[in-house]
Formats: sequence, structure tokens, C-alpha cells
Amino acid sequence: MKYITLTRFAARALSNSGRNYQCRCFSSSTMPEIKDQQHSEEKKSEVNNNNGVVSSYWGITRPKVKREDGTEWPWNCFMPWDTYQADVSIDVSKHHVPKSFADKFAYRSVKFLRVFSDLYFKERYGCHAMMLETIAGVPGMVGGMLLHLKSLRKFEHSGGWIKALLEEAENERMHLMTMVELVKPSWHERLLVITAQGVFFNAFFVFYLISPKAAHRFVGYLEEEALISYTQHLKAIETGKVQNVPAPAIAIDYWRLPKDATLKDVITVIRADEAHHRDVNHFASDIHHQGKQLKQAPAPIGYH
Amino acid sequence: MKYITLTRFAARALSNSGRNYQCRCFSSSTMPEIKDQQHSEEKKSEVNNNNGVVSSYWGITRPKVKREDGTEWPWNCFMPWDTYQADVSIDVSKHHVPKSFADKFAYRSVKFLRVFSDLYFKERYGCHAMMLETIAGVPGMVGGMLLHLKSLRKFEHSGGWIKALLEEAENERMHLMTMVELVKPSWHERLLVITAQGVFFNAFFVFYLISPKAAHRFVGYLEEEALISYTQHLKAIETGKVQNVPAPAIAIDYWRLPKDATLKDVITVIRADEAHHRDVNHFASDIHHQGKQLKQAPAPIGYH
Repeated sequence: MKYITLTRFAARALSNSGRNYQCRCFSSSTMPEIKDQQHSEEKKSEVNNNNGVVSSYWGITRPKVKREDGTEWPWNCFMPWDTYQADVSIDVSKHHVPKSFADKFAYRSVKFLRVFSDLYFKERYGCHAMMLETIAGVPGMVGGMLLHLKSLRKFEHSGGWIKALLEEAENERMHLMTMVELVKPSWHERLLVITAQGVFFNAFFVFYLISPKAAHRFVGYLEEEALISYTQHLKAIETGKVQNVPAPAIAIDYWRLPKDATLKDVITVIRADEAHHRDVNHFASDIHHQGKQLKQAPAPIGYH
Repeated sequence: MKYITLTRFAARALSNSGRNYQCRCFSSSTMPEIKDQQHSEEKKSEVNNNNGVVSSYWGITRPKVKREDGTEWPWNCFMPWDTYQADVSIDVSKHHVPKSFADKFAYRSVKFLRVFSDLYFKERYGCHAMMLETIAGVPGMVGGMLLHLKSLRKFEHSGGWIKALLEEAENERMHLMTMVELVKPSWHERLLVITAQGVFFNAFFVFYLISPKAAHRFVGYLEEEALISYTQHLKAIETGKVQNVPAPAIAIDYWRLPKDATLKDVITVIRADEAHHRDVNHFASDIHHQGKQLKQAPAPIGYH
């Protein structure tokens, strides 16, 4: 009922602010209603794509969540309470000057990889962004998972860093889900992604085990490169090189964009997200540089 | 600003319901105020255990969140909007009768492991529970991570299952953080956990890759065993075998328990959580048994 409560807060708050979410099944008062409905064929088929037997035995039903305009919430991979308005006022040009050996190693590795991606993608901005996100979603998940296992193993708190890093991974995945609506990957791009993930996931896993300090710095620099790419992407839209198409529905819902938002708005909020991830990862690396553990500095949860 | 919005909802809703959360730094209107404070030594030391330079450069500060009674929110590993009231009305005796080979394999594996844990722990309920949670936190993280990587690799939505499984892992970790307040692990228990995790994480990782159907069923049965253990634990408290000590502060905040809650209340809500995880995992396995992919059936996000 974690989200039940949340959603009831959200529902109340939204109705206060003149909006109206309907989150029926998230209100405990209506839980019995849903249980009663479990045996209704209609409910079953609506709920679990006809695997009704499942829901009727385990009593698991799809949340009935609606948009503020009363229309059905169409997404399963994120809910209204996961949506936010990106803080686009963040400084996108901040750079961490490499100091230590770990810094320089991280910086040069990223610059080295950059050469290949520039050679491969040239000015195919959309495609570049899409491929970038398939990689950008990995470090947060690896870091979050390793800290989670450490927390279980050592019976100790994480200081919120598990959540902060998993949030980053989820946010990057949402970027990908958005880009996929705009660019259809070709078979050789799909093949490249599978290979790249196979290599990068394992490499980063070992990298993080050996030196979380260098690994977080590496991600910080990766995000700095992403910021450069997205800034070029925005310039290309402004100069008309890239058509400023309407924003996909998923982006409008996830970042609470206006209905008439365009690609430019989407790239702007994605760039802001990357700037926040840059800060979080450089911050994490700085904590290690000071000989501290992440758990000693409270994590920037919900830093967007 | 995802959580900013959430917290502002929560803050408003709570104040409507006569409670008053203060989430200053989560209100976008006060973000500038916090940026101004970055250079204050006091702020720095308060925020990041004296690694002030970090926060002053990256502008990352600890959220100023307060409890409803106005006292400082003491936890970094979870926030007020992660807390919930467990649905203790759930049927804790539900059992999935093994049908397929995968079911029987999963069931027998769990029963086999049960023998050893019973031999090792005998009637040391608290210790048993604590060790159980160090293992129970693994499958959700492994499943969530593998689905996340699949989602990135295949450019496809997860149907919310990534979030649902990561929520399970986080919830199990919170159980552990609670049990640790009650039972101090000895050196040989710590050693056992490290070994057990090393083996179980890798084994479950491969298991999930080979057959998510059997892996989710295995977790379903693992949770059924956990329910049996916690029911015995509750009986031991009722009969006075185990002292019904006051609930730890972390449990009171996480499950929104009354200030005078006891161990019995804590074990009751933890048992309810495990019952929900049992349902989610048996449900996931049933989806696979029907030849479907998880993403085809919307995930039970926030099913507590």
C-alpha cells in the first residue's frame, strides 16, 4: 500500500490544485470492490490480457489510474507519481577538471569512446541519442545493485544511494523509451546494442567493484559528453537540420509537457536530466576521493 | 523534481489531514534558497558530513524533511513517501500446488533448503528472520536488473515489472534494516551471509536467465516458507518464548506503526509484506506458464 498512500496524497493534492486524478484501486477503501470483481470475466480479461485465472487466484489487478483530464492512464512502465517537471535551469556546461589518476583515467576513457561514437553516428543525432541511452541505463543499475548487495551483506544502511542510483537507471530507460518513439532502430543498430551491452555491463560491473571512485567519475564524464551531444542536437533542431516533430505522448506524460510540446522540448528536458546525473556521479566520486563511503553523505534522492 | 512533486502532494495532503510534513528543499519554490545556502559552512557540514566542497560545487544538499510531528526525518535510506501501512488482511496461508516440472523443481529446492535452515537456526527466530532477509533481498534485484537490461537491449517496455521487482528487493532490505535493530549478528553469522550471498546471487542470476518461470515460482515458495517462519515467530511471541520488545524506531516510521508498537506488530506487517511478494512471484510464474511474457500482464506496482 506504499503507492496507495502516495496516490491518495497525490489525488487529494491534485484535486486541491484543481486537477483530478482517479486512482480507484489505490484507495484502500475500494480494495474490497476490486476483490469482488476478481471473478468477473470482463475484469479478468481487461486486467491481465485474458490470463484471468491468474488474477482471480492471486487477486492482482491492474491499477485503475486516470490522467488529470479523466482519460485512462495508458502506461504500465511508469505511474503519474513518477512524473515530474525537469529543472531546466541547471548549468549544462559545468565540467569537473580531472585531478587524480582515477579522474584522468576516467576522462580519457570517455574521450576515447567518444571518438568511435562520433565516427559511427556522425550527424545522425536521434540515432546517436538512442544508442547513448541504451548504455546510459547500465551504470545506475550496476551501482545500485552492488550497493544493495553490500547493504544486505554488511547489515548496513546505504544512505539512500541505492535508490538514487536506481532512479538514475530508470530515468535513462525512460529516455530510451522516448527516443524509440522517434527513431526506429535498424537491425545492425540492434545488433550493436546487444554487443555493446554485453561488453559494457560486464566491464562496468568489474570497474565498479575495483574502483567505485573512478566508476562514478567515468559516468560523470559520460554525462558531460551526453550534454555536448544533446546541445548539438538542439542546435541542429534550431537550424532546421533536424525536423522539430511533435513530442511523443510518453514524453508529454512523463515530463508533464504541454500537449503541443515538440522534439526541442523533449531534448531540453532530457539534457537537464543528464546534467543532474552528471552532478550526482561527480558528487559520488568526490565522496570517495575524500576517503569516505557513499553512505556517509546522504544521497540526492529525487535530484532532477 | 520527481520527488519534489510527490512530496509537495504529500505535504499538502498531510496538512489537509491535520498533519504537517515540512519538505523545504523539495519545494521548487524554495530551491533558490537552498542554492544560496550552499556556501554556508554550517549548511555544508550539516549536509555532507563536512565534505562541504562537494556540495558547494555540485549543489547537492540533503533534503530537509520532517516527520508529521515536526521532528527531523532521521532516515536517508527511505523517505516519508516510501512509507505505508501494510495490508495485514491478506491471506497468509495461500499455497500454490506444484503442477509443472518447473513448479515441482522449485518447490523441492525450497523444501530442501528449508531442512538446513531449520537445522542451523532451530528456534532462534530473530536470527533466522535476519538471515532470511539477507537472501530474500536478492531475487527482486536480480530479476529487476535482468528485465531492465532486456528493456534497454530490446527497446521495449517492461510493463512495470522492473519497478515491481526492485520494490520487492527494497522492501526486503527494509525488513533486514529492521531485524538488525533487534538482533546483532555474530561473526560466524556475518561470514555465513557473505558466503550464502556469493553463492545465491550467482546461482539465482543463472537460474533466472535459464528459466524466469521456475525462478519466480522458487521465490513464491521461498516466501511461503518465510510466512511459515514468521507465523511460528508470532506464536513464540504470544506464548512468551520470545520477548515482545518495543518496535525499533525505523519500523515505526516505515510501516507507520503507533509509537507504542511492539515486536509482534513488526513481525505481523513483515509477514503481510512476504505474503504480497508470494502473490507477485507466483503471478509472474503463472504468466510464463501461460506462454506469455511478463510485460504482457501489467505489473502489480505498489502491491503491499
